[in-house]
Amino acid sequence: MEKSDGRVEVVGYWISAYVHRVRWALKLKGVDYKYTEEDIFNKTPLLSHLNPVHGKVPVLIHHGNPLPESAVIIEYIDDVWTHDPLLPQDPILRAQARFWAKFLDQKVITSTALALYSEGEDQERAVKLAVEYLDRIEEQLQLQGNIFFGGEKIGYVDLVMGFVAYILPVWQEVASVNILDLSRFPAIAAWTVNFLEHPVIKTEYLPHRDEIFSFYSRRRQELLPLCGSQTHLGKKVWSFLLS
Amino acid sequence: MEKSDGRVEVVGYWISAYVHRVRWALKLKGVDYKYTEEDIFNKTPLLSHLNPVHGKVPVLIHHGNPLPESAVIIEYIDDVWTHDPLLPQDPILRAQARFWAKFLDQKVITSTALALYSEGEDQERAVKLAVEYLDRIEEQLQLQGNIFFGGEKIGYVDLVMGFVAYILPVWQEVASVNILDLSRFPAIAAWTVNFLEHPVIKTEYLPHRDEIFSFYSRRRQELLPLCGSQTHLGKKVWSFLLS
Repeated sequence: MEKSDGRVEVVGYWISAYVHRVRWALKLKGVDYKYTEEDIFNKTPLLSHLNPVHGKVPVLIHHGNPLPESAVIIEYIDDVWTHDPLLPQDPILRAQARFWAKFLDQKVITSTALALYSEGEDQERAVKLAVEYLDRIEEQLQLQGNIFFGGEKIGYVDLVMGFVAYILPVWQEVASVNILDLSRFPAIAAWTVNFLEHPVIKTEYLPHRDEIFSFYSRRRQELLPLCGSQTHLGKKVWSFLLS
Repeated sequence: MEKSDGRVEVVGYWISAYVHRVRWALKLKGVDYKYTEEDIFNKTPLLSHLNPVHGKVPVLIHHGNPLPESAVIIEYIDDVWTHDPLLPQDPILRAQARFWAKFLDQKVITSTALALYSEGEDQERAVKLAVEYLDRIEEQLQLQGNIFFGGEKIGYVDLVMGFVAYILPVWQEVASVNILDLSRFPAIAAWTVNFLEHPVIKTEYLPHRDEIFSFYSRRRQELLPLCGSQTHLGKKVWSFLLS
């Protein structure tokens, strides 16, 4: 186990759910770190230096090594600070956790973001997709019958799923859609309460609901003309890339 | 270390590069397995049962547990059969391997596939993107100065990159594009030779060049009307989802 001695740094952006999950992981491990805010809409040369490939946050810096990609960072944190593991130790449970984390990132986030950034028929399709993907999550939570995906303790999948607890509800308001239907997703609803009540999540920085609302209202206005497509071909492309 | 005793099964499709990388991983570990071919264009109920979420191959079955997603499967194989590791043991190198594997899957495969399934201006853009992504791979290979991404031995990233060695060259012919320019990518060219000459890759099943050519010529005809879009909005969607 490595002593946390200030050599850990996170470069992030205040509203990014990808950044929050990394900060939660470090907090759960009890690792102190320096947090540096980067304006992703007016990127500094620092970010291109730290993450030349994608130019995105979060970036974790440890012993001078910059490491991008939240999923990769969380696995790294679990590999370096091995106490209080975030991933299960059993290989098959470990693999399943990786599977669901990927599913959340690739399917749930993509479809819910498309629901936020579209309108009309496109939006209806995105909402339908998002609900079907969340059915899988609901099914898993019910099947496992634990408080969290990680069992009694918060784990890797819970951190990746975090945005469902505090960002998705606001996206719904911004885009006037209903995805998180309580009667359809009772286990996700219970998970949300437990997640937000967890001592680490509760005390770690999270943006206020009103800040989330006004940020994504603005983003929706900007991105709507780009993402919503009423054209036949546009829809086909959309469906192909979501498949 | 687990004895390989026939309880391992791979459900796959003959031309899938995602399936080949899993078979290579098992072969590199010396794990015997049963291979079952699944016609992904006429899926049997077996596949929906094994992989209800995505309905895709490969699926690894071990001790009766079905596990989908090639990247997840390879990490699982490395977790269960710990000899001859496919991922580096050092946490930062391990994280970097995961980063590049993800980059290959998300950026290199997506952009080269779009180059295959498009024409005209769309195709030019896809080729340009693919070449820029491959620049990053070239840079890494040159920087590391090893035979393989994994060092002297084939590792995780090499397996994920495998399609560059035997499928991408054929895609180029099918779509009449030039992505793998030898003078621009000398390290990738050297890697390709070393990869295909590796005793495990050489002796493991790979489809013949002509089979790859005719399969993807047919696929290109089928998918061209869906993926190529000359509309303004279609292109925007395309660029947004690729970003």
